Amino acid sequence: MTDVKLYAERLGRLQKSLRQERVQAQLVASPANMAYLLGQRPMALERLLLLVVPILGRPLLIVPQMHASEFTHLQGLLTMDPWKDGEDPCRLTIDVLLGGGFQTRPSEISGGLPVHCDKGVPAVLALALRDRFPSMPLCVAEGAIAKARMRKEPAEVSRLLAAGGAADRAMEKAILALRPGISELEVAGVVISSLLGDGAEPDPPLPIVASGPNGAFPHHSTSSRRVENGDAIVLDFGGRCQGYFSDMTRTAFLGDPPEEFRSIYRTVAEAKEKATSAIRPGVRIGELDRIARAHIEAAGYGPFFIHRLGHGLGLEVHEEPYLHAGNDQRLEEGMCFSVEPGIYLPGRFGVRLEDCVVVEQGGPRSLTAYPLDLICR
Amino acid sequence: MTDVKLYAERLGRLQKSLRQERVQAQLVASPANMAYLLGQRPMALERLLLLVVPILGRPLLIVPQMHASEFTHLQGLLTMDPWKDGEDPCRLTIDVLLGGGFQTRPSEISGGLPVHCDKGVPAVLALALRDRFPSMPLCVAEGAIAKARMRKEPAEVSRLLAAGGAADRAMEKAILALRPGISELEVAGVVISSLLGDGAEPDPPLPIVASGPNGAFPHHSTSSRRVENGDAIVLDFGGRCQGYFSDMTRTAFLGDPPEEFRSIYRTVAEAKEKATSAIRPGVRIGELDRIARAHIEAAGYGPFFIHRLGHGLGLEVHEEPYLHAGNDQRLEEGMCFSVEPGIYLPGRFGVRLEDCVVVEQGGPRSLTAYPLDLICR
Repeated sequence: MTDVKLYAERLGRLQKSLRQERVQAQLVASPANMAYLLGQRPMALERLLLLVVPILGRPLLIVPQMHASEFTHLQGLLTMDPWKDGEDPCRLTIDVLLGGGFQTRPSEISGGLPVHCDKGVPAVLALALRDRFPSMPLCVAEGAIAKARMRKEPAEVSRLLAAGGAADRAMEKAILALRPGISELEVAGVVISSLLGDGAEPDPPLPIVASGPNGAFPHHSTSSRRVENGDAIVLDFGGRCQGYFSDMTRTAFLGDPPEEFRSIYRTVAEAKEKATSAIRPGVRIGELDRIARAHIEAAGYGPFFIHRLGHGLGLEVHEEPYLHAGNDQRLEEGMCFSVEPGIYLPGRFGVRLEDCVVVEQGGPRSLTAYPLDLICR
Repeated sequence: MTDVKLYAERLGRLQKSLRQERVQAQLVASPANMAYLLGQRPMALERLLLLVVPILGRPLLIVPQMHASEFTHLQGLLTMDPWKDGEDPCRLTIDVLLGGGFQTRPSEISGGLPVHCDKGVPAVLALALRDRFPSMPLCVAEGAIAKARMRKEPAEVSRLLAAGGAADRAMEKAILALRPGISELEVAGVVISSLLGDGAEPDPPLPIVASGPNGAFPHHSTSSRRVENGDAIVLDFGGRCQGYFSDMTRTAFLGDPPEEFRSIYRTVAEAKEKATSAIRPGVRIGELDRIARAHIEAAGYGPFFIHRLGHGLGLEVHEEPYLHAGNDQRLEEGMCFSVEPGIYLPGRFGVRLEDCVVVEQGGPRSLTAYPLDLICR
């Protein structure tokens, strides 16, 4: 496995960051962080799978017995501590930290340096650690990993583009399938078949197909409602290729849309275009949200744009950076995120348009290409 | 919405349990617990959606603004506290608890009674609460909800049976599709199409199809590997109908299986049959694992049965009760769980057989019916 070298490098860079930031250890339980650092994303569900990356020395993996064999090729990098169903993995974690995890570290770093838990570390473990090590500063933080994951490497961009292509093809088929009488779930089935045919795993498992009044719920749960003439239909989905996501949204209309719908659609499309054209390295991320929101507010729909402008995309469908007005981070080359303004009229309909872009030196590069013109079927 | 009455009753029963167990409040963030108590399971992803059920008085819902409209029909039951993207929901939670959540409770319960967080409460919130309320006992516990969810009501059993039927039909189609050259992902596509056609949401999103040596990983990640003559193929999946899961596993063989495979298959089938026939109210849950494990150990395969016998099933695909040897709980009518022994030979193949049952007065009732005989294709 030549990939082992890649993961050794990523672990090494994380340890270097821990030394720079004087963090005693990073605990990793989020599946996406696990995939980034080890290339494995086991379906561990409720079983604790925990990577302990100390500031120095060999990382430890606390792994459910039934998943241990998925990591054997990484034995050169990791010390493995398997646990069996019925055992208490929190107690094992504490034993491991007491035994070899922290005590063997040089004395100058065993003291007051903080331990960071990533977002995947369950509360039961965080509270157990706080109780057992009351003088050890402990917090939820994963800045070093998030920072590394935020700047995509070329191989990651290739996978994101593959996932985007699969979403584009699925969008085309879904829009061709729209006709009066087809149910939201049936349209979702068309999307899923297309994604699977492209080797992409549908994620979210059920694509969002939100017709008529359902479109006013941004994360509508796709239902058996049948599409009717006069419906706006929000289609929002993506697929996962080699671990990397895509995510896109189009809003189509069945029949001849009234002027109000056309005007709202235009407003959303313009907001998206304005925000997208401002993307370049160095721009404050919150500024993109401000640009799109100002345009929608000027059209009188401010109160109906009820979410941030977008979210990062990569090994997770939502990850850093988050595009809300208060985000003072600056855009950097390699960042990848969605731009997805929307207007939601409760009880009536919604309009959302979304593409994900990667930031390049010269500006944004879109990962999806399906046209943004209003499509009436 | 007549369902509102059902959720009012469930919330009322939870509050009664809190009074009996002298728990100050239950914090609920797990999507399945939310679905059980409120009938809603929003796709909130990383956004905090938190239900605070105090020992007395009105429950509070801390809800991302974009999901608030999914709860408007419950406004008679709940006080809603929406938060906007970019705000800090942990701070809002603390403010809410200080303002109206706890302080307005009678003085005799505002003191030393514990607060329970369910498994969905993120570590960042649990640690923030511990820091802000250092004298308030805080732990991860959801016993009252888990106990209620464990005993399925008749309407829940109907949904579990519907989900089981959809899995049965998908299993039949998947096994008919097996032929040399078909890829694991293509077989998964057959399963997904069948489930969607039955109105069941595939969950896990990607069915497990584990051929040849991949079968030795119990939770193999379905791949582009093509099935060959001489492969054992483990098929493990389920669908979700009206919120309730199914979960089943069969192991088929392509070609004429050698005696070793036949013998292992027989051992697994017998272990499953022995454990299943011991199911009746009052039996210690761990005893079922012991029965199946003893049979597999007697055949010499003990070290290759690397997981517990099963898990509960309902609004989650894994929930209480967990069938490991150390579980001293007693079976009760209405409990629903999987029985799924397996034998995994690293680098070679795996065999697992699984059905879920509901415990009735007279014994187990299976939720799936596809035959357990060895199928060779």
